[in-house]
Amino acid sequence: MKFNIPADVPANKVSIYKKNLKEATNGKNRLMLFAGDQKVEHLNNDFYGKDIPLEDNSPEHMFQIASQAKIGVFATQFGLISRYGRDYNNIPYLVKLNSKTNLVPYDEIDPYSKAWLSVGDVVKFAKESGLDIKGVGYTLYLGGAYEHEMLTQAASIVHEAHKNGLLCVLWIYPKGRFVKDEHDGHLIAGAAGVGAALGADFVKLKVPFNKKGKFSSKLLREATMAAGRTGVLCEGGAKIDEKEFLEELYEQIHKGGSRGNGTGRNIHQRPLKEAIKMANAIYAITAEDATVKEALKLLA
Amino acid sequence: MKFNIPADVPANKVSIYKKNLKEATNGKNRLMLFAGDQKVEHLNNDFYGKDIPLEDNSPEHMFQIASQAKIGVFATQFGLISRYGRDYNNIPYLVKLNSKTNLVPYDEIDPYSKAWLSVGDVVKFAKESGLDIKGVGYTLYLGGAYEHEMLTQAASIVHEAHKNGLLCVLWIYPKGRFVKDEHDGHLIAGAAGVGAALGADFVKLKVPFNKKGKFSSKLLREATMAAGRTGVLCEGGAKIDEKEFLEELYEQIHKGGSRGNGTGRNIHQRPLKEAIKMANAIYAITAEDATVKEALKLLA
Amino acid sequence: MKFNIPADVPANKVSIYKKNLKEATNGKNRLMLFAGDQKVEHLNNDFYGKDIPLEDNSPEHMFQIASQAKIGVFATQFGLISRYGRDYNNIPYLVKLNSKTNLVPYDEIDPYSKAWLSVGDVVKFAKESGLDIKGVGYTLYLGGAYEHEMLTQAASIVHEAHKNGLLCVLWIYPKGRFVKDEHDGHLIAGAAGVGAALGADFVKLKVPFNKKGKFSSKLLREATMAAGRTGVLCEGGAKIDEKEFLEELYEQIHKGGSRGNGTGRNIHQRPLKEAIKMANAIYAITAEDATVKEALKLLA
Amino acid sequence: MKFNIPADVPANKVSIYKKNLKEATNGKNRLMLFAGDQKVEHLNNDFYGKDIPLEDNSPEHMFQIASQAKIGVFATQFGLISRYGRDYNNIPYLVKLNSKTNLVPYDEIDPYSKAWLSVGDVVKFAKESGLDIKGVGYTLYLGGAYEHEMLTQAASIVHEAHKNGLLCVLWIYPKGRFVKDEHDGHLIAGAAGVGAALGADFVKLKVPFNKKGKFSSKLLREATMAAGRTGVLCEGGAKIDEKEFLEELYEQIHKGGSRGNGTGRNIHQRPLKEAIKMANAIYAITAEDATVKEALKLLA
Amino acid sequence: MKFNIPADVPANKVSIYKKNLKEATNGKNRLMLFAGDQKVEHLNNDFYGKDIPLEDNSPEHMFQIASQAKIGVFATQFGLISRYGRDYNNIPYLVKLNSKTNLVPYDEIDPYSKAWLSVGDVVKFAKESGLDIKGVGYTLYLGGAYEHEMLTQAASIVHEAHKNGLLCVLWIYPKGRFVKDEHDGHLIAGAAGVGAALGADFVKLKVPFNKKGKFSSKLLREATMAAGRTGVLCEGGAKIDEKEFLEELYEQIHKGGSRGNGTGRNIHQRPLKEAIKMANAIYAITAEDATVKEALKLLA
Repeated sequence: MKFNIPADVPANKVSIYKKNLKEATNGKNRLMLFAGDQKVEHLNNDFYGKDIPLEDNSPEHMFQIASQAKIGVFATQFGLISRYGRDYNNIPYLVKLNSKTNLVPYDEIDPYSKAWLSVGDVVKFAKESGLDIKGVGYTLYLGGAYEHEMLTQAASIVHEAHKNGLLCVLWIYPKGRFVKDEHDGHLIAGAAGVGAALGADFVKLKVPFNKKGKFSSKLLREATMAAGRTGVLCEGGAKIDEKEFLEELYEQIHKGGSRGNGTGRNIHQRPLKEAIKMANAIYAITAEDATVKEALKLLA
Repeated sequence: MKFNIPADVPANKVSIYKKNLKEATNGKNRLMLFAGDQKVEHLNNDFYGKDIPLEDNSPEHMFQIASQAKIGVFATQFGLISRYGRDYNNIPYLVKLNSKTNLVPYDEIDPYSKAWLSVGDVVKFAKESGLDIKGVGYTLYLGGAYEHEMLTQAASIVHEAHKNGLLCVLWIYPKGRFVKDEHDGHLIAGAAGVGAALGADFVKLKVPFNKKGKFSSKLLREATMAAGRTGVLCEGGAKIDEKEFLEELYEQIHKGGSRGNGTGRNIHQRPLKEAIKMANAIYAITAEDATVKEALKLLA
Repeated sequence: MKFNIPADVPANKVSIYKKNLKEATNGKNRLMLFAGDQKVEHLNNDFYGKDIPLEDNSPEHMFQIASQAKIGVFATQFGLISRYGRDYNNIPYLVKLNSKTNLVPYDEIDPYSKAWLSVGDVVKFAKESGLDIKGVGYTLYLGGAYEHEMLTQAASIVHEAHKNGLLCVLWIYPKGRFVKDEHDGHLIAGAAGVGAALGADFVKLKVPFNKKGKFSSKLLREATMAAGRTGVLCEGGAKIDEKEFLEELYEQIHKGGSRGNGTGRNIHQRPLKEAIKMANAIYAITAEDATVKEALKLLA
Repeated sequence: MKFNIPADVPANKVSIYKKNLKEATNGKNRLMLFAGDQKVEHLNNDFYGKDIPLEDNSPEHMFQIASQAKIGVFATQFGLISRYGRDYNNIPYLVKLNSKTNLVPYDEIDPYSKAWLSVGDVVKFAKESGLDIKGVGYTLYLGGAYEHEMLTQAASIVHEAHKNGLLCVLWIYPKGRFVKDEHDGHLIAGAAGVGAALGADFVKLKVPFNKKGKFSSKLLREATMAAGRTGVLCEGGAKIDEKEFLEELYEQIHKGGSRGNGTGRNIHQRPLKEAIKMANAIYAITAEDATVKEALKLLA
Repeated sequence: MKFNIPADVPANKVSIYKKNLKEATNGKNRLMLFAGDQKVEHLNNDFYGKDIPLEDNSPEHMFQIASQAKIGVFATQFGLISRYGRDYNNIPYLVKLNSKTNLVPYDEIDPYSKAWLSVGDVVKFAKESGLDIKGVGYTLYLGGAYEHEMLTQAASIVHEAHKNGLLCVLWIYPKGRFVKDEHDGHLIAGAAGVGAALGADFVKLKVPFNKKGKFSSKLLREATMAAGRTGVLCEGGAKIDEKEFLEELYEQIHKGGSRGNGTGRNIHQRPLKEAIKMANAIYAITAEDATVKEALKLLA
C-alpha cells in the first residue's frame, strides 16, 4: 500500500512517519484507536457504576487491555502514560494532548479544551522514556467563542507532529448553543473538511444519523469524501451489543468509507478477558480486513 | 511594467518579491486569485448539494483545477497544501493563514479568526518542501471586540511576508452588529484604506452595491482610489451565469479600477473540464487583457 | 517498598525523585502534608479569632511547628518560605505554587488560581538557598470558565516537577455554579481520575459524604481506586476533636485506601506544644503505621 | 536651546535623540505634527465626500504634502510608509504604531487599540530602508476595561523608543461610558499628567472647553503645567477657517503653554498647493516663532 | 540592627540588598515612603484645586521635595523618574511599576493594574543611568476577576526584585463589589498576610477603623502581627492637620506595630518649604525614633 505523506513531513522524518503510520494501521491505512481519555472527559461516569465491572475503575484496566489486545494505538493522557508506561512499554501510544470535564454544559460556557503539553514535550518524553509513541491527539470544538484558539492550536499541533514524524488525530465536534444537531450528516461532513484543511491524518467524528436517528452509511459518505486524504474515524459511543457494534463498524468502513474507529467504552467496560477479545474483534475488521463473521468468532 | 516594491522588502529579497509579484500577476500587476478556503469558512455548503457536481466534494477537485488551469494563485489552507502538495507541485500557492467556520452568527459573538501558523512556518515549509508558495493571506474583520487583535496580526503578517519576499493578500470585511450594510460603497472604501494603511499588496473586498442592490463601478472607484498602491480584488461570491460574471469582472477592472478578483464557487462548483475553462476565462480578463468576448470563447 | 517512578522522571533524576518520595513518606508511600497556605486562601480567618491562640496570628507559628514536629512536608507559599527559610532550614518544604483569596464567591466569578512562579523558579531557588524542597503543589478547580487554563498549568507543573525530580501534589476541587455537591463521592472519584490523568503523585481531595453528611470510607474507595497510582490525600478541614480526627484519619487510610492527608487548621490552631503533639500523632498514623490508640498516646 | 534628555536614553543614543528632537522641532522644542492616521481611525470619512477635494481620496496626497511642505513629522501607519516610502524619502516620519476604526461606539465596547508592530520592528525598518524615522506614536484610551493593557504598551513603547534614540508621542484620550465630557479641562490635565508619568516626549490631547464650549487657554494652562517636561500638542480637529485656526494655534502656544499641534484634516482636506501653504503657516507659528499675521501671509 | 534577608536574595546580592534596606530605613528597619504616584491614580485631583498651592501642579514640585527633604524612598512612575532623574540624581527612588486611573468605578469593572515595565527593565535602567534605585513597588487589588493575574505579577516582581538585591513594596487593597468595608481590621490583616505570603519587604495598607470610623491601633496590631516579617506601612490618605497626622503616625508605629508609612498628599500639597519640613517631621518619627514633640519642632 502506498501511503500519503504530508508535504510538511521533512525529508529526514519521512521514514519514521511512514513507520508510525504503517504500524498503527497494520499496513492497511485504517486505524483502530482505543480511546482512553474519558477519565477527564466524562469524569468517573464511564468507569464505575451499574453494569460496569469494578476492575474498570482502576486506570490500570485500560493499560492491561491495551497491552494484551491487538490495537492500533491507545489514546490517553500524558499523565497516565507517565504513571503506567514503565510497566506497559509494549503499547503503541497516542498522547491525547487536551481534555476537559463534562461539568459545564456546552450551552452555558462555550467549550474550550486547551493542549496540556506541547508536541515538543511529547517528542522529548518519547526519546527519554523509550516508549512507543506513534502520535498525538487533540479535540477541537467548532462553533463557539474559543473556536479561533482551538483551530490555531489544532493547526499547530498537526504541523509540529508532522515535523517530528508523528501522526496526528483530531477529534472534531461542532458543539454548543449554535449547533442544533450534532448528528447532522452535512454538518459532520463540514467537520471532516475542517480536519482536511488542518492537514490531520485522521479525524474522529460523530456518526451521522438519518431522520430516524439511525446511523446512515450514505450520509457518512459525504463526510469521508469531504475529508479527502484525511481518514475518518467513527466515534464508538456508549456501550452496545457486540454484534450490532461490529456490524455497524463493518458498514462504516465498507459502505461509508471510514478509515477506522475510536472506541473506548465498548471495550473497557468489560472484564479484562472479554475486553481483550472485543478489542481484537474490532481490530480484525478495522485493520485485518476481517468480515463480521470472522470477527465474531474472536469473541467466542 | 514597473512594480511598486514596499520599503519593508529588504534589499536581498527584492528580486524574489518582484518575481513572485510578476509571476502571480502575469506581469500585468493584476491578480487572479482562485479562492479555496471555503471548506472551513462555509463548512461543506459550497462543496456538496443541489447543483454542485459530486466531484467537488473531494478536496482534490480544487487541486486538479488549480493544477490544470491558468491561475494567479490558489489560496487555501496549509493543511490541504500539505496533504496534496507532493502530487500537485506545479501550482502557485497562497497560504491562507486563518479561517473560521460559519457556525456562529456575526451578531452573536464578534468574529475573530486567528492565524493558524506563522509566516515563518510557511517560509520554512516552502524551503523544505520545494513548493511554489508566492504569498500568504489573512482575513480581517473590522468592527468588533477583536478588531485590535486582528489588525495587529494583519500588520505583522504583511510585514513578515515582505521581509521574506512574499506577497500578502488581506481579505477585509467590516462585520457584526455595528455594521448595517456590508455592501455600502463608502464603508468598503474605508476597508480599502485600512488595507493600504496595513501595507497589503492586495485587499479582497466585498463589491459595493447601489441603492438597487446592484454592483456599481462608480462606487468601486472610491475604494480603488482609497486603496492607493494596494490592489483591490473583488469578491467572486455565489455562483452565477458565466457571461454575467465575466462582464461584471471586466467592468470591475476597467471601470472600477480593481486589480483582480478572488473567485471560488464560480470555478470549483463545476465539473473539472468546465471549471478549468471558467478559470482560464477569468484569468484571461484579469491577467491577459482579454475582452469579455475573447474570454467567452474560452468557455466554448 | 517499591515506589512507582513516573516515566517522565528522566534517568538522571530518578534517584533524587525516589529520595524525595521516600523521605516525604517515611518510606511508607503515605504523605502527611502540613497545609499552611490558608493566609491567602482564607485570609486571616484561620489565624485570628475566637478559640484560636494569639500566637497563630504570626506566620512564624507554622514554621515553629513544622520545624519541631514530625511531618511529611510543609506546604506553603514561596514568599513565606523565602522570609523564614534561612532560620528554619530543617523543614521539608512543598512550595504551593498558586493561591487565591476567598473574597469572590465561587458562583459569582468562576474560580481561577494561577501559578505565582514556575517550577523552574523553585528549582533555582532550592539550589541557591540550599533549602530542602521536596516538591510543588497546585490547586485545580474543575467546572468553570478557566478550567482549561488550570488543567494546562497543572499538567505542565506535574511534568516540570518530574523532570526535576520533584514531587507534585494537586489539590483538585470541582467548584462553582455547575457543581451542586462538593462532597458527592462519585464526583470526588472523578476528580481523583483527573489527578491520575494529570500524572500527579498525590491529589488532595474533599472527603466524600454519605446521605447523612458523614464521611464514608466506602465512598472514598471509589476515589482511591479511580486515582490509580496517584495517592489520595484527604482534606483536614475545620478544627475538630482530636480523637474524632485521628479515628477518621485511620479509617480513611485503612478502610478508604487513602495515602495520607493534608491538615492545617487541626494542627496550627493550637498552642505550639499541643500543635507539635497533634502533628506527631497525625504523622504516626499516616507514616508510621500507628494505631489510633498509639497516636492518642502522643497527645498526652 | 537646551533639551531635556530623558534618563532612559542611553549614553550612546543621546546624540541621535537630540538630533531627532532638534530637527523635528526646528530647534524650538515645539512640534508641528502632520497627522495622517485617519484612514483607519475614521475610515474614508475624512478623505472623500462633500467639500473634500477628490485628490485627498488617494493616500499619495498626504505624502505629496508632507514631502513639499515644512512639517515637524508626518505621523502615519507603517504600511503606508512602506508602500510610499521609496518615492518619498525626504519626509521626516513618525510611525503611528496603533489605530482602530470608528465602527464600534465607545460606549458599546471599551476601546482598545493595540500596537501593530514593535519599536524594534521600526528600528530595523529604519536602518534597512534608510528612511528618516524620527519617532513613534501610540494612542492611549483611559477609562475602560483595557486601560491596563494600553498603559503597559504605552510605557513600554516610550521606553523602547528612548532606548533607541527615538521620540515618542502619545495621543491620550479618556473615553467611553465613564467619561462624561472629553473637553473638560481638569480631565485633560489628568491625561497630561498620565503622559508625564509615562515619560512621553509629547502628548496629543483634546482641547479644553469652557462652559460655553469654546477653547480656553486658561484651562489649557492646567494641562501644560501638569505635563511637566512632556510637551502638549493640541488636537487639530475638524476643518475650520484658516484664520480662526491659526489664531487659536497661536493662543494655545503663547497663552496656553502648548508645545505644538497635531493637525490632519485642516491640512489634507485641501488641494495640494493650498494644503502645502496651510502646513507652512502652521509650521511657521509652531516652529518658527511667527505671528499670526506672518503666518497668514504664507497662505496668500 | 539585624535585618531579615529573604532566602531568595542570592548570595552575591545580599550585601546590596542589605545596603538598600539599611539606607532606605536609616538602619531602623522602618520605611518613610514619599508616595508620588497619584498623577495616574487620581489624575490631576491631588495636584490642582482649592487649597492646593499652584506649584504642586508641576511634577517637578515632588522632585524638589524629595531632593531636599529627608525621606526613605520617593515612589513614583518610571516615566517621571526618566524625565527628571538627570537633574535630581540624589533622590533614593522606588519605581512604582503599575498604576491605573480612577475613571472606572471599582464596582463597575473589576480593577486591574498591570506592571508597565519589568524589574529587569528597572535594573538595566539603574545601571545605565546611575540613579539610586532602591526598589520597586506594585499595587495589588484583591477580590476581583483579575486577582489571579495580579497575584502572579506581585509574586514574580517580589522574587525578581530580591534576585537583584532590590526591595519590593506592595500596596495591597481588597476592592470592588465583593468588598464591603475597606477599613475593616480583620480584612486588612488578611491583606497583610497575603503580603507576607508573597514575600514582600513592606506592604502598604489601608488603616483599620473601629466602629466609629476612627483609626484603632489595636486593630492595626492584628495586621502587623499577621504580616510577620513583612513590614506594614500605613497609608497617608487625604491631607489633614499636621499635629493630628504626626500623632497618629507615632501611634501606628509604637502602639500598632507598623514599620513605616506611605505619605503623598500630606506632604506635596504644601508649598515647597513647608512640604520639606513636613517630610522631615514624618521621617523623624518613622526613621529617627523621634517623639511627636520633637517632630513638631521641625515644622516650626
